[in-house]
Amino acid sequence: MVGKGRIEYGGNEMIVLLLGTGAVGEAYAVLAKIGDPRGEWLEKLVLADYDLERAQKVQARLGDQGRFPAEQVDVTKKEQVVELIQKYQVDLVMNACAQVFNVPIFDGAYEAGCNYMDMAMTLSEINSEDPYHKTGVMLGDYQFACDQAWKDKGQLALLGMGIDPGVSEIFAKYAEKNLFDQIDEIAVRDGSNMEIEGYDFAPSFSIWSVLEECTNPPVYWDEDKGWYTAHPMSGSEIFDFPEGIGSIEVVSVEHEEVINLPRWINKGLKKVSFKIGLGREFVNIIKLLYKLGLTSKELINVKGMEVAPRDVVEACLPNPAELGHQMKGKICVGTLVKGFKDNEPRDVYIYQVADNQVCMNKLNCQAVAAQTACGSIIATELLARKIWRGAGVLPPEAFEPEPFMGLMEKYGFPYRIIDKSTT
Amino acid sequence: MVGKGRIEYGGNEMIVLLLGTGAVGEAYAVLAKIGDPRGEWLEKLVLADYDLERAQKVQARLGDQGRFPAEQVDVTKKEQVVELIQKYQVDLVMNACAQVFNVPIFDGAYEAGCNYMDMAMTLSEINSEDPYHKTGVMLGDYQFACDQAWKDKGQLALLGMGIDPGVSEIFAKYAEKNLFDQIDEIAVRDGSNMEIEGYDFAPSFSIWSVLEECTNPPVYWDEDKGWYTAHPMSGSEIFDFPEGIGSIEVVSVEHEEVINLPRWINKGLKKVSFKIGLGREFVNIIKLLYKLGLTSKELINVKGMEVAPRDVVEACLPNPAELGHQMKGKICVGTLVKGFKDNEPRDVYIYQVADNQVCMNKLNCQAVAAQTACGSIIATELLARKIWRGAGVLPPEAFEPEPFMGLMEKYGFPYRIIDKSTT
Repeated sequence: MVGKGRIEYGGNEMIVLLLGTGAVGEAYAVLAKIGDPRGEWLEKLVLADYDLERAQKVQARLGDQGRFPAEQVDVTKKEQVVELIQKYQVDLVMNACAQVFNVPIFDGAYEAGCNYMDMAMTLSEINSEDPYHKTGVMLGDYQFACDQAWKDKGQLALLGMGIDPGVSEIFAKYAEKNLFDQIDEIAVRDGSNMEIEGYDFAPSFSIWSVLEECTNPPVYWDEDKGWYTAHPMSGSEIFDFPEGIGSIEVVSVEHEEVINLPRWINKGLKKVSFKIGLGREFVNIIKLLYKLGLTSKELINVKGMEVAPRDVVEACLPNPAELGHQMKGKICVGTLVKGFKDNEPRDVYIYQVADNQVCMNKLNCQAVAAQTACGSIIATELLARKIWRGAGVLPPEAFEPEPFMGLMEKYGFPYRIIDKSTT
Repeated sequence: MVGKGRIEYGGNEMIVLLLGTGAVGEAYAVLAKIGDPRGEWLEKLVLADYDLERAQKVQARLGDQGRFPAEQVDVTKKEQVVELIQKYQVDLVMNACAQVFNVPIFDGAYEAGCNYMDMAMTLSEINSEDPYHKTGVMLGDYQFACDQAWKDKGQLALLGMGIDPGVSEIFAKYAEKNLFDQIDEIAVRDGSNMEIEGYDFAPSFSIWSVLEECTNPPVYWDEDKGWYTAHPMSGSEIFDFPEGIGSIEVVSVEHEEVINLPRWINKGLKKVSFKIGLGREFVNIIKLLYKLGLTSKELINVKGMEVAPRDVVEACLPNPAELGHQMKGKICVGTLVKGFKDNEPRDVYIYQVADNQVCMNKLNCQAVAAQTACGSIIATELLARKIWRGAGVLPPEAFEPEPFMGLMEKYGFPYRIIDKSTT
């Protein structure tokens, strides 16, 4: 820790506190052991969860209780986060909880003097006067406002470092540095042909987060208007995804990339958007639940109990962490960059495709969770090996993309580049 | 009370305990005062609710605290029901609660030795082996099984005495007695052109009950197979409703008429069904909520609390009792009887149409609640005036339909008869 000189630790052995051992946390731990089987850069990974049994189940998979201790923690209580950091002399807090818990974890890491990483930024709040045109509090506003304080103490907070957000932004930074002279537009486009057998409606990712990003007004950015919003899941278009996924309808949802890219990508950037293929039925279901008030995260009184309808919806649906064996298909996360190179117009799509069957066979983790975790484990390795370094509150774009992309193959999540202007 | 000779009370002054002062209970109380402004047959109406304020609000509308005392009650506790019956020397318990509370109220009335009326019968339980073909526990089974016990004590329980069930069955009995020599089929058909301004999905009746009847397998009866079931909201057909409502798609839902009519209507009856116009969007919404598990009345664990998803859906939606001013349109409850008279085929539709505007203007009650309550207040008057009498557990068909239908005009809910074979 800072003050004990741990950020600049002597060897490369980092101690990481993983908060949350759900689907993504579990995949992070599994990939950590694959990426560093002998503890060359990851000395210890503390597995902490509100549900100790879940942490212990992951621990049992990893099979080394000394290197992977399990702990119970309530991350809504900052002091418990601080306590665990102190107990294990933690260098990096890896936040793999739902983003609703970001604040106490982020603040706890700051207070305890260690580094921090998450895979989604603090929640937005709508502009109550004009929600579908103007932004209110944006994703990550709370965290980025702390940048100077973190810098002053020499601590690093790396925000939104999963696959999307995260790797999707690294692809954009790579394109800016290596593939373009001028950039007009960045369009993150995600899609899949995933099906979940036996279920009509079973999200492959945290339903809480899916409902958050889908029911919030999506954010766009352009150079004249800055950030602005629209109606949830609007902006429908057809996008042609590679590797057999095919042409899919994508719609706008609120996502971190649109907040971060305009701040970190230069070369004349004019437009940024994020769209994802949810499927027509999925969109209709979310719209209906929204209309009925069932996506609300606010507590309501139900026969004397205070309950958030969104938590009830989540409790009714199957746990996406347990659906890996019923899932079939591929997911694609990619960044389409449009601009010019050598005075020629150029459209490049850089992407990562994960196949659920492959993820299940290799990692026994479902593809959405594994692909998300791949972003954070590679970043962890780069920080541990001091290839990435820095202080302050930073997004993935603030770091060199080449070493990151160079490690993707190692973890089994290779990237590919299609030059759409020549194909 | 029995034993004190109260069932055969001296004058015609009856003391009624109204349990539940929601939309239907309130309408019952309002109609009671209209039907008997001077206490000629209704000496006292005790207004009891779980929410005392709600009972007091109804009391304030009626403006005679002596004749309409307000009480707090938890009807899940039979002893509280018994206590109130004893306190007020009650002759008749009028159950205007959701039918999920029938058992303690029905048993409490029996124990305390007084008469009982409700507007929906005890809940069914599906046949877990073959839910969409075979009945399990049927609506009212629990109550009808007590028939002999009630008879033995000289007490009457009149079940399902609202508009539908209730008046719909009285129409059938009337047709059997007065309009047909032979009856082949009875088809209860309900429909409306009601719209609720400002809401995409706002049921005009208790959402709990709507979800119960719509998601249970609907019951049919025919003379060869007896009672059998089908898939929820199946059996779609177009029915032409009178008085400007027009042609509407109706679907089968579980309803009491199908249980009661085959037991009490003779003259060769071959088929009984119940179908209602819910609207295509409404049906889709209920099907979706069902698919997601959100219509379930079973408790699930949500962040440490035991909650029934159906209660959460109900809490999210506007209270139908408060929507009267936004509702517009008419509702029709009717019974189509097909058979022969004087060797000629005959199709007769006997119906009651209520217009929400009229109900709001005259009663300041919304039409669905008022129409439901009209069935029970007329039955109350007939019992009080000893025009209807009896002992045991009985459905509306067990009583003379003519005096009932003769009182409908008085309460503002007249019936009409269309001879479809001649029009």
